[in-house]
Amino acid sequence: MTNTDKTIKDPVHDHIHVDGFALDLLDTPEMQRLRHVRQLGTAYLVYPSANHTRFEHSLGVYHLAVRALDNLGVTGVERDEVRAAALLHDVGHTPFSHNIEDIVEEHVGKRHDEVDDLLDGEVARVLEERGVSPDRVASLVRGEGRYGQLVSGALDVDRMDYLVRDAHHTGVPYGTIDSGRLVLELGYVDGELVLGEGNVQTAEALLLARSLMHPTVYSHHVARISTAMLERATQRLIEADNGVDASEVRRMDDHELTVALRENDVTRETAERLAERRLYKRAVWKPRDELRDSTLDADPRELEAEIAERAGDSVEPHEVIVDVSKPPVMAETEARVVVDGEKRMLEDVSSLVRTLRRVHEEQWRFGVYTPEESVEEVVDSAEGVV
Amino acid sequence: MTNTDKTIKDPVHDHIHVDGFALDLLDTPEMQRLRHVRQLGTAYLVYPSANHTRFEHSLGVYHLAVRALDNLGVTGVERDEVRAAALLHDVGHTPFSHNIEDIVEEHVGKRHDEVDDLLDGEVARVLEERGVSPDRVASLVRGEGRYGQLVSGALDVDRMDYLVRDAHHTGVPYGTIDSGRLVLELGYVDGELVLGEGNVQTAEALLLARSLMHPTVYSHHVARISTAMLERATQRLIEADNGVDASEVRRMDDHELTVALRENDVTRETAERLAERRLYKRAVWKPRDELRDSTLDADPRELEAEIAERAGDSVEPHEVIVDVSKPPVMAETEARVVVDGEKRMLEDVSSLVRTLRRVHEEQWRFGVYTPEESVEEVVDSAEGVV
Amino acid sequence: MTNTDKTIKDPVHDHIHVDGFALDLLDTPEMQRLRHVRQLGTAYLVYPSANHTRFEHSLGVYHLAVRALDNLGVTGVERDEVRAAALLHDVGHTPFSHNIEDIVEEHVGKRHDEVDDLLDGEVARVLEERGVSPDRVASLVRGEGRYGQLVSGALDVDRMDYLVRDAHHTGVPYGTIDSGRLVLELGYVDGELVLGEGNVQTAEALLLARSLMHPTVYSHHVARISTAMLERATQRLIEADNGVDASEVRRMDDHELTVALRENDVTRETAERLAERRLYKRAVWKPRDELRDSTLDADPRELEAEIAERAGDSVEPHEVIVDVSKPPVMAETEARVVVDGEKRMLEDVSSLVRTLRRVHEEQWRFGVYTPEESVEEVVDSAEGVV
Amino acid sequence: MTNTDKTIKDPVHDHIHVDGFALDLLDTPEMQRLRHVRQLGTAYLVYPSANHTRFEHSLGVYHLAVRALDNLGVTGVERDEVRAAALLHDVGHTPFSHNIEDIVEEHVGKRHDEVDDLLDGEVARVLEERGVSPDRVASLVRGEGRYGQLVSGALDVDRMDYLVRDAHHTGVPYGTIDSGRLVLELGYVDGELVLGEGNVQTAEALLLARSLMHPTVYSHHVARISTAMLERATQRLIEADNGVDASEVRRMDDHELTVALRENDVTRETAERLAERRLYKRAVWKPRDELRDSTLDADPRELEAEIAERAGDSVEPHEVIVDVSKPPVMAETEARVVVDGEKRMLEDVSSLVRTLRRVHEEQWRFGVYTPEESVEEVVDSAEGVV
Repeated sequence: MTNTDKTIKDPVHDHIHVDGFALDLLDTPEMQRLRHVRQLGTAYLVYPSANHTRFEHSLGVYHLAVRALDNLGVTGVERDEVRAAALLHDVGHTPFSHNIEDIVEEHVGKRHDEVDDLLDGEVARVLEERGVSPDRVASLVRGEGRYGQLVSGALDVDRMDYLVRDAHHTGVPYGTIDSGRLVLELGYVDGELVLGEGNVQTAEALLLARSLMHPTVYSHHVARISTAMLERATQRLIEADNGVDASEVRRMDDHELTVALRENDVTRETAERLAERRLYKRAVWKPRDELRDSTLDADPRELEAEIAERAGDSVEPHEVIVDVSKPPVMAETEARVVVDGEKRMLEDVSSLVRTLRRVHEEQWRFGVYTPEESVEEVVDSAEGVV
Repeated sequence: MTNTDKTIKDPVHDHIHVDGFALDLLDTPEMQRLRHVRQLGTAYLVYPSANHTRFEHSLGVYHLAVRALDNLGVTGVERDEVRAAALLHDVGHTPFSHNIEDIVEEHVGKRHDEVDDLLDGEVARVLEERGVSPDRVASLVRGEGRYGQLVSGALDVDRMDYLVRDAHHTGVPYGTIDSGRLVLELGYVDGELVLGEGNVQTAEALLLARSLMHPTVYSHHVARISTAMLERATQRLIEADNGVDASEVRRMDDHELTVALRENDVTRETAERLAERRLYKRAVWKPRDELRDSTLDADPRELEAEIAERAGDSVEPHEVIVDVSKPPVMAETEARVVVDGEKRMLEDVSSLVRTLRRVHEEQWRFGVYTPEESVEEVVDSAEGVV
Repeated sequence: MTNTDKTIKDPVHDHIHVDGFALDLLDTPEMQRLRHVRQLGTAYLVYPSANHTRFEHSLGVYHLAVRALDNLGVTGVERDEVRAAALLHDVGHTPFSHNIEDIVEEHVGKRHDEVDDLLDGEVARVLEERGVSPDRVASLVRGEGRYGQLVSGALDVDRMDYLVRDAHHTGVPYGTIDSGRLVLELGYVDGELVLGEGNVQTAEALLLARSLMHPTVYSHHVARISTAMLERATQRLIEADNGVDASEVRRMDDHELTVALRENDVTRETAERLAERRLYKRAVWKPRDELRDSTLDADPRELEAEIAERAGDSVEPHEVIVDVSKPPVMAETEARVVVDGEKRMLEDVSSLVRTLRRVHEEQWRFGVYTPEESVEEVVDSAEGVV
Repeated sequence: MTNTDKTIKDPVHDHIHVDGFALDLLDTPEMQRLRHVRQLGTAYLVYPSANHTRFEHSLGVYHLAVRALDNLGVTGVERDEVRAAALLHDVGHTPFSHNIEDIVEEHVGKRHDEVDDLLDGEVARVLEERGVSPDRVASLVRGEGRYGQLVSGALDVDRMDYLVRDAHHTGVPYGTIDSGRLVLELGYVDGELVLGEGNVQTAEALLLARSLMHPTVYSHHVARISTAMLERATQRLIEADNGVDASEVRRMDDHELTVALRENDVTRETAERLAERRLYKRAVWKPRDELRDSTLDADPRELEAEIAERAGDSVEPHEVIVDVSKPPVMAETEARVVVDGEKRMLEDVSSLVRTLRRVHEEQWRFGVYTPEESVEEVVDSAEGVV
């Protein structure tokens, strides 16, 4: 170990104590890179202060994990494994966080929680020096096993940090869950992570916070449009003749991808639009039941091509973006809570939680975006397609 | 005018109302660029959450200016000029804010508040459409005239925003001044901006907040070291054979300068050190009275060369950085406050304020930085030089 | 008018500006009394910091009303009437706010929003000097007419203040609604107060905040037990031979009722229990569907008598309290929101809101409380009764 | 032990964990009484939300003490003694906290930190059951010995709680010290409590916070006037024929003293003035150097009598109050801080701290208060006296 203990100031958790082992992990290039990956991708185009990064979020997740481990009385190598997994859980993120992960994963064949190939080099050296297996850490990051649930699962400390942190930096008041209480109420029943007796309400509040943050922040239409533009540009960068390999994109930070998009002829225009916030506008914004039956089964690229063709010569094919949003995964509905001494699934004991599934379906929208000057043509041409 | 009114969410001021004119200014490339210029430069290497930008700060300054204008009853074109100046006051900032402004100014011959050459193109179009003179706005940004004091002066709304905002994003509690009250207490006496009767305490608190934030955040030694490394690398980038022109650097954002430094052979190593937080260490850290008489008059570059030479072959000349920090300008000491019906200078009515000058001198340090492995040699060789 | 403008510091809204008219109202004995009426009654026995009063809440409601009036462009005498009603809306509250209002209303025949008899004396003098009719103000407090909806209704500024204020003082994070936005989005359609387009989410958040605060704070079982004890003691004080008249109780503040209960022989024991937090415990705590059919129709006093009698000599009749909680009135479900240009009722456009009715029914509990030493007997004897 | 562990929600420290021993202490009548003693006395007449009590403050002090003890590694009976002392340190406070303590102490002969006679009955039983000596606890409350410094001294956890708590409840932003950091930096050198290396700045900030809170909150002229009125009325209550014994007043809570003052003929008028905020006004408000030499040596009561007599028949003797404020004790100036490995006194290493003494002297004011209608007469008559 080369570092000694340190206390890091954090606006969400006040002081985060990190010991030498955690500091050594923090000092690896893989972790330092996260200082340059915005937590919420392009959401800063809606909430100007949303510039926080995966780095401080990772520190926050580490802090909550340590408090949970203290409370659960976990010691020894298992404790070190969980601490490492909490700190490292986001090293697999692409630049701009979730914004471009689909397109990169498609080309690279790795999800952002498949980090086994990233826990090498300096990270592996630090882990092994401490007697911690990189493979075990990678499996915890994927949410496997007893303690994997703490890192990635229905009651993981990841969401307990990001909801509060995103609220702090956007100024939106809906994410203010009681993370202090949640972490103290965690326990295990039959190997499963549960919230102890008397916490149905606490768990509902967690889910509600996320339900409120979703339309307001995470799925705000301007965030979705800018994400779609960034994703499409990144795809074109990867597929261009003088492009950039997907596995290289995966390891870039926000600076590098931003500049790469600005410098390539194919993507320059979109990059400038993002830089100057001249975003595409919505030509279509429909709930599920207003779509044709065939739309959701179709290949979005083919829909784009067809809409662009019908729109005539003034609209270039790449200027039509079809955005089929994935429904939010509501992992919390399956959180386990102890009720009258028995372990129950949250959605079985809370009608509020069952409703939230329906609410999310009602809020879901299918979008087609295009430059402002082409909106009218695309509205008309999309009419016959989606 | 192309935009209609809008309310922007801000974690510091809650909701910021911007009308069409302000929105049109916000939508210019000059303002959008500030989304990618960190407010505190490299301070995020000390405070991980300090990733806020000049963009949201500019919005906050605008918001406070509008509240002050409301309270002062300023209307018509003067009001529009001040609003524009408040919003645009930072368009002249280099990437990483203050970090590299000296070196750029030296080459370009413009200070960051000399923005007349920047208020052209799209910005000029928007201003003139509104009947606002870009020259008048530029003069307000320089702090000239009756209302220029609101934008840049001892009681400007700039500092009322940044102290609170920096506190919010770093988590350091010292900057929490009562900006709401300050703005309501502003008035004019004989053309000078003053705080009304009963506000000596309020003004002292403003100055104290800055005095506490200085050593804790703005002049933290890690912030100074990383700034010095960034500044030196930028200088070498500008002066390199295949370098980048200073006037081009001036208009870059953080992404572009970061990548430019990483891609140039001369600066790559420093850029990687900054990316991975492998920072230089202090070899010398001295108060003024422990320095030789000649040190402060000497050219820092010559001191560096001499120290490096004495240190022997293992230390390359560019690996020694001499950092002569400028003392903080304590503009607030000259703030005007009404006491018993008379306009007084703050430092004349407050012994606390007079003391702060001395405090700042005591806190001042002269630094010499070098890579960790060279610290011992440089400690020795500097002994005979500074 | 005898007062001049003033700014009052408030931890929720920062600075509250009050002009001479509002200050004159504030200075009446009726308003000053509210400084000694706790906003949340006995909830401080659960949340030790919940000692805020109806006074600062009234100021907060006034502040939000003024912002709404500014935004709606209401001027002249109507504006003054609404301002007065916002400030005075709680002068009819009994000591300990809602805790004992039922028992007092039963005897006095006035609800806490029937304030016409209270707007006399000093208050009437101030209102009339300003040309404001006390009767008009009383009718606004009852929620009547176009602007009465602002003061008391589904979207009133009352709830926008108390949710945030109760969250601030208890430390419970669930009440943090975006009151700043709500107030800016209010408008009128066909004489009805509505939230403008795009605010279904905002309205849902308001209702959710209240739904979360209810079980956590307002209906916490310790708050319910202490309220029931206080209410029963007050009833016995009113009905005692050497008791206190209900109309006198109505105008007491918390100090006076507390001491009156401590000094009367009939109520001394309960008063001491409340002072030392030796509270009754739950003997019965049942959802609706576990009760006998007859229970909810029965007179609670007769149930108490029967349970006490069956419990035998060790339990005195007044030591059994049956607590039939009223379901929370969910006024917000009927809030009007503009959706696609049409005025709609919130519960018609939000399945989330419809669910909350069911949630509240599930959370509802019927309670029987008794001193700790009698719990076992009362559990048994209540078995055959409720 | 009769209680089991519990977590109490607190708006300042979030969750406060209290174990069975601490809960048993909390449940004593002596501690529960503090729920009805306002922390800041009559300051709620200036800051309407300043209704927090000694009870939640005591919990906060307990919380910080436990964190300090954890960090210092103190265990066993010494730990229990300090925990008890932290929780119980304020049981000796009179109603309205500091407001009337002088007058009560004068009659009772006990200071508010002489609590040995209060640690009897239920408190003694709980302490002794745990093997903790009430005498030892009383000595820690007086600040004696190694660990007494934690409870009462230049770096005690008392001030670390109240500054933050008073800021939270008043809304005044100046008290936001970094209590989390302070508590982590405490240590012992030669038996003396010190702040570790690198904390001069932290200690300065603590002192500055108090220096800013003083004129703004604690010594605000309205707080001083209402305190003086309350104190004088309490004195008259104690000295009246049908009065209340001082030792009885000492154990009252705010409710009881308030009602006692309202019910006694001698004090009723002042009590009503306080209830309706019809406060005396300043007739004299002078810095030290504008006073006659003899004034500060004179008996305030004699000054009052003389001023009243000169003012003529319209001014009753008890309507003139002379208020000789004690200078604030600036204990923090003597705080020990480690600088370059050596233990130093804060004022020896900080010129800022030395200045604050002078600042406090400049801010000091001598006051004479009287009803509004007598101000003119008293201004004139005081002219020749003080």
